[in-house]
Amino acid sequence: MRALVYDGELKLVPDYPLPIPSSGEALIRVLLAGICNTDLEITRGYMGYRGVLGHEFVGVVEQAPEPGWRGRRVVGEINCACGACPTCQRGDAPHCPHRTTLGIAGRDGAMAGYCALPVRNLHVVPDEVTDAQAVFVEPLAAALEILDRVHLRPTERAIVVGDGKLGLLVAQVLRLTGCSLQVVGRHADKLSILEGMGIDVCLERAVLLEVLADVVVDCTGSPGGFDLARRLVRPRGRLVLKSTFQGDNPVNLTGLVVDEVTLIGSRCGPFAPALRLLAQDLVRVDDLIEDRVPLDEGVAAFERAGRRGSLKVLVEP
Amino acid sequence: MRALVYDGELKLVPDYPLPIPSSGEALIRVLLAGICNTDLEITRGYMGYRGVLGHEFVGVVEQAPEPGWRGRRVVGEINCACGACPTCQRGDAPHCPHRTTLGIAGRDGAMAGYCALPVRNLHVVPDEVTDAQAVFVEPLAAALEILDRVHLRPTERAIVVGDGKLGLLVAQVLRLTGCSLQVVGRHADKLSILEGMGIDVCLERAVLLEVLADVVVDCTGSPGGFDLARRLVRPRGRLVLKSTFQGDNPVNLTGLVVDEVTLIGSRCGPFAPALRLLAQDLVRVDDLIEDRVPLDEGVAAFERAGRRGSLKVLVEP
Repeated sequence: MRALVYDGELKLVPDYPLPIPSSGEALIRVLLAGICNTDLEITRGYMGYRGVLGHEFVGVVEQAPEPGWRGRRVVGEINCACGACPTCQRGDAPHCPHRTTLGIAGRDGAMAGYCALPVRNLHVVPDEVTDAQAVFVEPLAAALEILDRVHLRPTERAIVVGDGKLGLLVAQVLRLTGCSLQVVGRHADKLSILEGMGIDVCLERAVLLEVLADVVVDCTGSPGGFDLARRLVRPRGRLVLKSTFQGDNPVNLTGLVVDEVTLIGSRCGPFAPALRLLAQDLVRVDDLIEDRVPLDEGVAAFERAGRRGSLKVLVEP
Repeated sequence: MRALVYDGELKLVPDYPLPIPSSGEALIRVLLAGICNTDLEITRGYMGYRGVLGHEFVGVVEQAPEPGWRGRRVVGEINCACGACPTCQRGDAPHCPHRTTLGIAGRDGAMAGYCALPVRNLHVVPDEVTDAQAVFVEPLAAALEILDRVHLRPTERAIVVGDGKLGLLVAQVLRLTGCSLQVVGRHADKLSILEGMGIDVCLERAVLLEVLADVVVDCTGSPGGFDLARRLVRPRGRLVLKSTFQGDNPVNLTGLVVDEVTLIGSRCGPFAPALRLLAQDLVRVDDLIEDRVPLDEGVAAFERAGRRGSLKVLVEP
């Protein structure tokens, strides 16, 4: 099969071997995959990953241990746990130390004709959700993880810092609480997508540091963004980190102690509620698509996705 | 002014005196008011209230201490606190023991040409929200109070028992969390409104008592509804009570202890998030309107609103 591979450099491999599903795994024909900032980071050395890229996808099950799965249109959770270690035994499979992660660690990804995942990771996509929308389930789930971890009340004030792909999803999820929400970003064109939904937006250079928030979410992926997010949290507030960084970052820990700020790291999230919100049209992702590119042009698609201010680039095998 | 008054019987009074605003209060010309189950309860003796009925309304400020309010279209929080007692001093005005409540306790309500409320209770209605939608702010706020009190996670399962006016609002608010939601009711026609939004519904006689929920909300207003709601909560789950009842009800307290169920009473809620959700079209109330009736026909409007299965009846002064 054709596959978009990173092995120190990004390349299209025309004759990559088909994945061989292990016990309990399904073979999935990929319909569409999405390029995420993590993919871009990987091509800059993040995780030291080598293999087929891609963890945001929708596909059709071609082979599965139970026949009921065959032909179903699915999305898949990306962490594949061992199921046997103490972490898995206490029900925390996403943090299994032996896990592989689709297109990120130890398991070939979805920017190829086919990929393989355990059947227990799969979720059937309802008919109301298009292929392009389904590709957003993985990052939308990551946004929803915030509300699984943090009780954001309708009466509270929240600020999202960052108007990238993830920031635009996080903002849409937080507004559903009815909270007083502001999104701080650097790109007027992307902020205008949110403005069109009635969300209050503000360019970073115009942000007022007097109006602090109960909950701030940093979606910038940059140390400067973290600093701004930190300054926007009220004393005893909560600061949610969605970005993954290369290397260490200087953080004023004493400031966190004095202000009694809670720092909450948040990563992958639950797929089922993401599918429910998309099926009920409560989160809109169609405006977040930059382009749809054939897999053959995958290297150019990565260039496109890596441009400053780029939205979601979809890759079609 | 004309006013719909309860003084042991419900009647239209053609020459009721205009309200005289106290210090800090505004005089509001009522555009539209809504009949709530509490109003129906009052005409059956609840609260021992005598006076003008109505606490759900939208109006225009005619007089106010600060000139900026004049001419603004507003909704108003219904509890008027003394501002001086220890409860008010600790910031819990809605529970002030000396409070009056619009159309419910010690203060004439909004089913009249005019009503009066403290300016601090008022919220300007954004242009995107129609008069009829604005009348739903008060009950929608009461629905949002649930999410202010309870952390309902996207990964949890919730059940709303009751498909009355309040149940239909509560269901719409809970679905915004992305949680797995089911609404149990008795009226196929009302459940179908929710079904049209993609919400899972179930007739009470078909409910499966095996599938317990993390959070159950009782919106039935009946002891039988409470019993069903109680049986649908999982051990260590949370049971939210929205209904107000006349008199005592038999509750198996030992069962609550053994199952470690948390019982949460929830009453009035925050107006600002309710206005935000309506302005952003995230909660739909237009389908919840049964009829719009002139104030002169207010007695007949109450009869209509009191019929089994009736939705919101609006009264126009």
